[in-house]
Amino acid sequence: MSEKKKTFGSPSSSLPNIKTDFSEWYNYVVYKAELADHAPVRGCIVIKPYGYALWEEIKKILDKKIKDTGHENAQFPLLIPEAFLTKEADHIEGFAPELAVVTHAGGKKLDEPLVVRPTSETIIHYMFAQWIKSWRDLPMKINQWANVVRWEMRSRPFLRTTEFWWQEGHTAHETADEALLEAKTMLTEYIDLAQNYLAIPVVAGKKSESEKFSGADTTFTFEGLMQDGKALQMGTSHIISQQFAHAFEIKFQNRQGTESYPFLTSWGATTRLIGALIMTHGDEKGLIIPPKIAPCQIIIIPIFHKSMANHEILAAAEKVEDLLKESGLRIKIDRDSESSPGAKFYQWELKGVPLRLEIGPRDINEAVVIFTNRITGAKKKVAWGDLKDFAHEELDTIQKMLFDRALKKRAEKWHKREKLTDFAKDLEEKGGFYQTGWCQSRECEAILKEHKASTRCLIEEKTFDTCFNCNAPSVTDVIVARAY
Amino acid sequence: MSEKKKTFGSPSSSLPNIKTDFSEWYNYVVYKAELADHAPVRGCIVIKPYGYALWEEIKKILDKKIKDTGHENAQFPLLIPEAFLTKEADHIEGFAPELAVVTHAGGKKLDEPLVVRPTSETIIHYMFAQWIKSWRDLPMKINQWANVVRWEMRSRPFLRTTEFWWQEGHTAHETADEALLEAKTMLTEYIDLAQNYLAIPVVAGKKSESEKFSGADTTFTFEGLMQDGKALQMGTSHIISQQFAHAFEIKFQNRQGTESYPFLTSWGATTRLIGALIMTHGDEKGLIIPPKIAPCQIIIIPIFHKSMANHEILAAAEKVEDLLKESGLRIKIDRDSESSPGAKFYQWELKGVPLRLEIGPRDINEAVVIFTNRITGAKKKVAWGDLKDFAHEELDTIQKMLFDRALKKRAEKWHKREKLTDFAKDLEEKGGFYQTGWCQSRECEAILKEHKASTRCLIEEKTFDTCFNCNAPSVTDVIVARAY
Repeated sequence: MSEKKKTFGSPSSSLPNIKTDFSEWYNYVVYKAELADHAPVRGCIVIKPYGYALWEEIKKILDKKIKDTGHENAQFPLLIPEAFLTKEADHIEGFAPELAVVTHAGGKKLDEPLVVRPTSETIIHYMFAQWIKSWRDLPMKINQWANVVRWEMRSRPFLRTTEFWWQEGHTAHETADEALLEAKTMLTEYIDLAQNYLAIPVVAGKKSESEKFSGADTTFTFEGLMQDGKALQMGTSHIISQQFAHAFEIKFQNRQGTESYPFLTSWGATTRLIGALIMTHGDEKGLIIPPKIAPCQIIIIPIFHKSMANHEILAAAEKVEDLLKESGLRIKIDRDSESSPGAKFYQWELKGVPLRLEIGPRDINEAVVIFTNRITGAKKKVAWGDLKDFAHEELDTIQKMLFDRALKKRAEKWHKREKLTDFAKDLEEKGGFYQTGWCQSRECEAILKEHKASTRCLIEEKTFDTCFNCNAPSVTDVIVARAY
Repeated sequence: MSEKKKTFGSPSSSLPNIKTDFSEWYNYVVYKAELADHAPVRGCIVIKPYGYALWEEIKKILDKKIKDTGHENAQFPLLIPEAFLTKEADHIEGFAPELAVVTHAGGKKLDEPLVVRPTSETIIHYMFAQWIKSWRDLPMKINQWANVVRWEMRSRPFLRTTEFWWQEGHTAHETADEALLEAKTMLTEYIDLAQNYLAIPVVAGKKSESEKFSGADTTFTFEGLMQDGKALQMGTSHIISQQFAHAFEIKFQNRQGTESYPFLTSWGATTRLIGALIMTHGDEKGLIIPPKIAPCQIIIIPIFHKSMANHEILAAAEKVEDLLKESGLRIKIDRDSESSPGAKFYQWELKGVPLRLEIGPRDINEAVVIFTNRITGAKKKVAWGDLKDFAHEELDTIQKMLFDRALKKRAEKWHKREKLTDFAKDLEEKGGFYQTGWCQSRECEAILKEHKASTRCLIEEKTFDTCFNCNAPSVTDVIVARAY
């Protein structure tokens, strides 16, 4: 399943217009760039090799961050006794409608049904209760890379699928302050991943009471603004309610020799990050993948021509490939000798490879190659001696351009407005972030539903004196947007 | 969940005798060395951080092998429509008794039940049928790292668990010869992993008709001989029956322009490999992990003593740690200042860290450290200037010693015997590999059940003229053993 063209979906249609048909454009890119395919199971996708290689690059970076901050990976069971889910009231209320339930196994009806994990707080807290006996056992800092299942009525590839892949961190601490520090530390790591690797500017802060995770005291979120003006929650970090510690009887002997309940956190980021980068960086030619996480950073297209034998052209391409690989770059040669260069350019642009390198008979005779920047389309003739330096510099430039461009686009769509009446129309028609004041009442927040919008996160600024809806004082600013 | 001692299972009992209580010894090591813990779900385990780090090292090596041989990773759904499983008669017959079935989801009864994947041939072949249209799409070489569920009546940690973790490769080829080459190539990679990384000598060959995978034409296996004399199947590589290609209608236009069905393979290795290395290398002190895959290759034990401040001793330990880390080794310092050195030695020996490094006030003054070899217990005083070289050489030596020792143990238990009547008693009482002749009839093979034994694999030697049971001619030699 290399770069050969496969047929699925509606094969002959061309790439929809990103400005007028964003949703169609998105689906086309996901399927035609071979990131994913439809699966024969409701709401599920198959992640194809190109999409999975992208996920592996993201995982590599995030896994290192998780380990460098003192966490250890482990694995907990996929199937969880149904009774575990019901131990924490808010948690089961939030997840009950989404559960997939195993009722039969080994040819028999089970005495107690097992749910396929929608998230693993319950089973991990059960284990924490076995493992945590003394303050010496704390902090306990565990992470799990796993698949989870939440039955979705309306799925979209990578953004909302019945099964998805993620990491979920779960930690226990002696004090509330330590738990807060942990939740914020991981939020900071996520922001770094988003901004400095995925090249996606994000806004981060607390969720409102009604938007927080089922079972959390506090949820921190980081959100991007997609090109169609909708917000995307890219991941969350929670301070878990003390009710969990009580429900699962996670007790330890504290430094004073008496019994305490630990303070818990959890935090997760998912394959949705792939959706975020598609919708942030894509353009009228398709996907653009930030160089730092691109499975293929440079695609080499040998330009076959009758003036030189194909194997000689390929040999030169391989020489260039070896040179660049040595310097740590991720590179591929498109060896297909049947498609035209134009058809190949189209396909690799669609797949968002940040840099293209052409090498044909004339280039070989001149000892040069031609680079093309995926964002600008600008071409540059580079001598073999300068290959490495140019490639590294140009990839750095592309990484920076992607972030700057996304930041500029976001700035154009980030508005400060005093009253909902001032921005309701724009919110509905154009999307965007609306930074405004809020009294933090549920009543005022609920009004946003009429505009298919929600509070995305509280931010630590205070620009406005009163609430966007009522005349009560604003507590802090809040970002309002329509969201995925 | 660092190296602190946790209490679970029966905490106060000491390590059972490996020679007389192998099974108890195994469980003790699994739980007390913190590789895994019991899970509150039938037949399931939790893989604890130390065990998971070991699995990550194994994965890293195997994943590289899989990619270097031209395969790409992808992800397919966990839940498979029940009807898919029944498309291939042998396959469903083999797996039906082990399936876990989701009958309800999203608060409703499903129209069609979904099974939790016991293996992914069916769903991957369904996708292959979408993707493979022409001979140009072949070979298709996909791998998936995944969890699978098979309902087990009698589980043992790592060896046989309801949920386990593995990689499953699935490929499609134009010709039968190519499929055979693929299955053998991956078998060879597995053998290399087993022998040159896990330090486990294996015997490899075809399975008998009755022992092969449900739905395979041919199953290749590689098997180790554990210290208790029982064989362990460590992984398999299959040529999948053409019935699968027909059942899922995987058709392609061949080079002649007519329609063909591709030849399929699948191959997998699981977390059972961890069980294999425990049972191959362990001794009366616990686990021994081969250096090439040890999550911690050297444990540094600072020897605290009133003659020098703890922080000074730690500083010296850290200097040594940095020096060795720089040279690419995986190292930890046991910073616990409460337990005695003896208690720490015991714990790290149990956990099988191949090399121990002690550093105390006297060593610091002399600018030396003391190394202890986990296998031999031999101590060696090494000057700081020679640290790196010694550590690398000693770890290489330990890797080699483990393999040689395992090979020697296996040789002692590998017997060539002509007739079952000659070896039935030894087989039952002492275990071991019995290489013998076989007519390849099911009747003679079935006799072995009476001795709780089975054919493990056919080998390409012919030592005996007649079958171990009847007087018909032997086709090839076969390994007979009791097995996990």
